[in-house]
Amino acid sequence: MKKKFDQRSFTWQDVHPTSYADEHSDGSGRSWRDTKRHIIKGRDEGGRFDVRYFEVGPGGFTSLERHEHIHSVICVRGRGYAIVGDEVHDVEEFDHIYVPANARHQFVNQGDDAFGFLCIVDTDRDRPQALGADELAALRAHPLLASKIKTASSS
Amino acid sequence: MKKKFDQRSFTWQDVHPTSYADEHSDGSGRSWRDTKRHIIKGRDEGGRFDVRYFEVGPGGFTSLERHEHIHSVICVRGRGYAIVGDEVHDVEEFDHIYVPANARHQFVNQGDDAFGFLCIVDTDRDRPQALGADELAALRAHPLLASKIKTASSS
Repeated sequence: MKKKFDQRSFTWQDVHPTSYADEHSDGSGRSWRDTKRHIIKGRDEGGRFDVRYFEVGPGGFTSLERHEHIHSVICVRGRGYAIVGDEVHDVEEFDHIYVPANARHQFVNQGDDAFGFLCIVDTDRDRPQALGADELAALRAHPLLASKIKTASSS
Repeated sequence: MKKKFDQRSFTWQDVHPTSYADEHSDGSGRSWRDTKRHIIKGRDEGGRFDVRYFEVGPGGFTSLERHEHIHSVICVRGRGYAIVGDEVHDVEEFDHIYVPANARHQFVNQGDDAFGFLCIVDTDRDRPQALGADELAALRAHPLLASKIKTASSS
């Protein structure tokens, strides 16, 4: 019933991260860099939610995406920023970021060390969607967001 | 979309804790000591889960109880122990404790500072139940658990 945390490796006992070393694209237009996912509490343990830990290396980012399910995110390591809709928020230890339904979002490391956060989601949820070409073009001309968004080809 | 964390007060922006100063009993036989609950992500924000932060002062404990809904617990402050079923686990920063359906459980501060943890639950969930008199009597004779369980009258 206990998954012990190891401070040195920043991992949990019996939790095996899925790693996307360097850059990765899933073929749907989503892309991310240097991101690992640890499933701390998964769908096999009952309840209607999953608890995951994401760790983003220096220079890394999660995919810029949207979906109907919400995110409840709590930073537990390092510092980064979160794009949510038209807003950009600095994120440090224990800050909470709420991503509403269908809001575009991305998490970007802005430190020299790992940036890590818990991300809680419904177990039954829709698939993330990449942004469309028109929306991406508009973002690239956006005064605040143009310099903030990251894609595999842009950085 | 951001609730900023304040390290000094260990609170989140716009999150107002419910405090049970000193001892409290809810009339159902459950009792706890020096425990605060902060609802970081509540039922009004969509999704099928709530994210709460519980903080237990030195000498404090949560109620000894059971229910059908599960808990996913991650320690973020201090040190304590968790009783889950017949097991007792030491709990330190970022350790994960899983409480299965219907397992009796209690969280006890065993340090000189605050002991705090995130506790994620289904939004739609059953009410916690106190243990029955027979079960409590058996626990008070249990070689491992007798010295670990806490109730308002026992400590």
